[in-house]
Amino acid sequence: MTTQRAVRLSDVAAVAGVSKATASKALNDSPVVSAATKAKVREAAARLDFRPNALALSFASGRSRTVGLLTHRATATFSRAVVMGAILELGRRERAVLVFDGRIHAHREMTESIRTLRDRRIDGLLVVGAGFGRVTPSITHQFEVPVTYAFAASDSPDDSVFVPDNEQAGYLAGRHLVESGRRRIAYVTADAADLAVQRREAGFRRALEEAGLEPAATLYGSWRQEWGAEAVDLLVESGRAFDAVFCGNDHIGFGVLDALAALGRVVPDDVAVVGVDNWEEIIVDQNPRRLTTIDLDLTGVGRVAADNIIDPTPFGGERFVTPNLVLGPSS
Amino acid sequence: MTTQRAVRLSDVAAVAGVSKATASKALNDSPVVSAATKAKVREAAARLDFRPNALALSFASGRSRTVGLLTHRATATFSRAVVMGAILELGRRERAVLVFDGRIHAHREMTESIRTLRDRRIDGLLVVGAGFGRVTPSITHQFEVPVTYAFAASDSPDDSVFVPDNEQAGYLAGRHLVESGRRRIAYVTADAADLAVQRREAGFRRALEEAGLEPAATLYGSWRQEWGAEAVDLLVESGRAFDAVFCGNDHIGFGVLDALAALGRVVPDDVAVVGVDNWEEIIVDQNPRRLTTIDLDLTGVGRVAADNIIDPTPFGGERFVTPNLVLGPSS
Repeated sequence: MTTQRAVRLSDVAAVAGVSKATASKALNDSPVVSAATKAKVREAAARLDFRPNALALSFASGRSRTVGLLTHRATATFSRAVVMGAILELGRRERAVLVFDGRIHAHREMTESIRTLRDRRIDGLLVVGAGFGRVTPSITHQFEVPVTYAFAASDSPDDSVFVPDNEQAGYLAGRHLVESGRRRIAYVTADAADLAVQRREAGFRRALEEAGLEPAATLYGSWRQEWGAEAVDLLVESGRAFDAVFCGNDHIGFGVLDALAALGRVVPDDVAVVGVDNWEEIIVDQNPRRLTTIDLDLTGVGRVAADNIIDPTPFGGERFVTPNLVLGPSS
Repeated sequence: MTTQRAVRLSDVAAVAGVSKATASKALNDSPVVSAATKAKVREAAARLDFRPNALALSFASGRSRTVGLLTHRATATFSRAVVMGAILELGRRERAVLVFDGRIHAHREMTESIRTLRDRRIDGLLVVGAGFGRVTPSITHQFEVPVTYAFAASDSPDDSVFVPDNEQAGYLAGRHLVESGRRRIAYVTADAADLAVQRREAGFRRALEEAGLEPAATLYGSWRQEWGAEAVDLLVESGRAFDAVFCGNDHIGFGVLDALAALGRVVPDDVAVVGVDNWEEIIVDQNPRRLTTIDLDLTGVGRVAADNIIDPTPFGGERFVTPNLVLGPSS
């Protein structure tokens, strides 16, 4: 099989028996070309399977069908799912992506990135941040094209920002445990100053309140597995009864599972356990799932943010992407 | 701050006091323009910080500075690291990426993808496969631009293919255990028919042979954690002495660690354990590392494959990317 070369406008013109200029006008539906000539040219174009040069189209339209993607750190634990979701969605919609990684907070590189992106005539820009912990400076005003933020806290309230719904994550976990008959539900989580911790707790409390319940206990520590195990020991030592533990993340959840097993408490019969993050979606692969969890759908955050560049919503503000309950054997 | 608009060629021409056509010729170093006029135009361009429209440049040069990326499944366990490595490297080199995911084996979609990529006038194409298990059909002949394959087995020996070096992974693990004084090293791995299993075993045996050793035992099973635990029990029941276990992957390694702990064998004092894949690089985050492992550097596979699109090597064939030994507390 030999290399195929693309059919050119001049080929179409030759087959249709018209000049290249006339062929071009005919294909662009110009009023100066007769209907008969248009039909002849289009028939030739269809027969030859003529597909216009994308570079010429881009140049003529002023649109590059390329989107810029500026990230804080694309390979960071959570950001990478957002980046992957955005890139796949942009690909699905046949947009090319120009990725500038790690350039959000380095001011000089940021300035240079913005210039390069503008030079490339991108059709839109997606900024992927590092979650809530770090406020991303708004750069919307530096572009004439739509700018959207994902997994970020922008310092401008007018920006379109897409984030996971941590409040809803807590609510889903709490409601699931209540609906499965649990009444003494403890919350074991990380630092109380962390925004994700606070939002998850707010949703969790809302679900319990709807059932006339309060948390059996709330223990603040770290995001680590060891803390989950330690918290179970603390709960048991306190003498407080509990029939479920909502864990701030899956790491804490694994620690809780290990500690309960060591104490001979049966999961989920004696104690149900729910985490957040759906780590096992990534690591389970060769292993059976252990944990019920809330998937924050970070890939979905990237996907809808990418969609918002292509079809921007008229108003800015923070949009929350709905998380999903993922059932496992721990509840 | 107001929106900045780009300086135009007409601005440069006006400042230099020449026509737009002359300014264009001067900037393109045309011989028909005098050295004095060129100097005047360039000085004006530099002063105004004129940056040519990328779309116009692309159209003029016939180069889009866009690379196609065709994947089997971008979110698959191992492929995603390759895809991420490629995308970040292409971004670093200011190439946009047009990602078509999941279209390698669906023939009709593949054909359509190839047409779209050709229409977009991509400067090169990267095909990310699904490892060795599945042969990727060569599509090199369908493009006039460089085509490179990563994490794939192409059916054409002329193709440029970048893959992790599984033989070297086994060799590094074996040599590390030998150098740390181990003499009775067992190999616990997956199905003997698996190419990765075979290549890792070949490298492992080579390292042992260099020290005049043979494997203490070789146990074939699955890639799962449970198999690692079961294999330890089998080894102990067999009565065979062992002071180290090279595990086909980290999942097996975690199972081996758990089983050894349950038997009261101290790691690494009694038994050293080495895995493959460096899963903990991804999941460790909040937790201390447990396992020494071999990192196959799949991100690096994506990175060097991306480089090969931009600066293609003159000859095709299979290139192996060197893995790294990652030290942990298990050896």
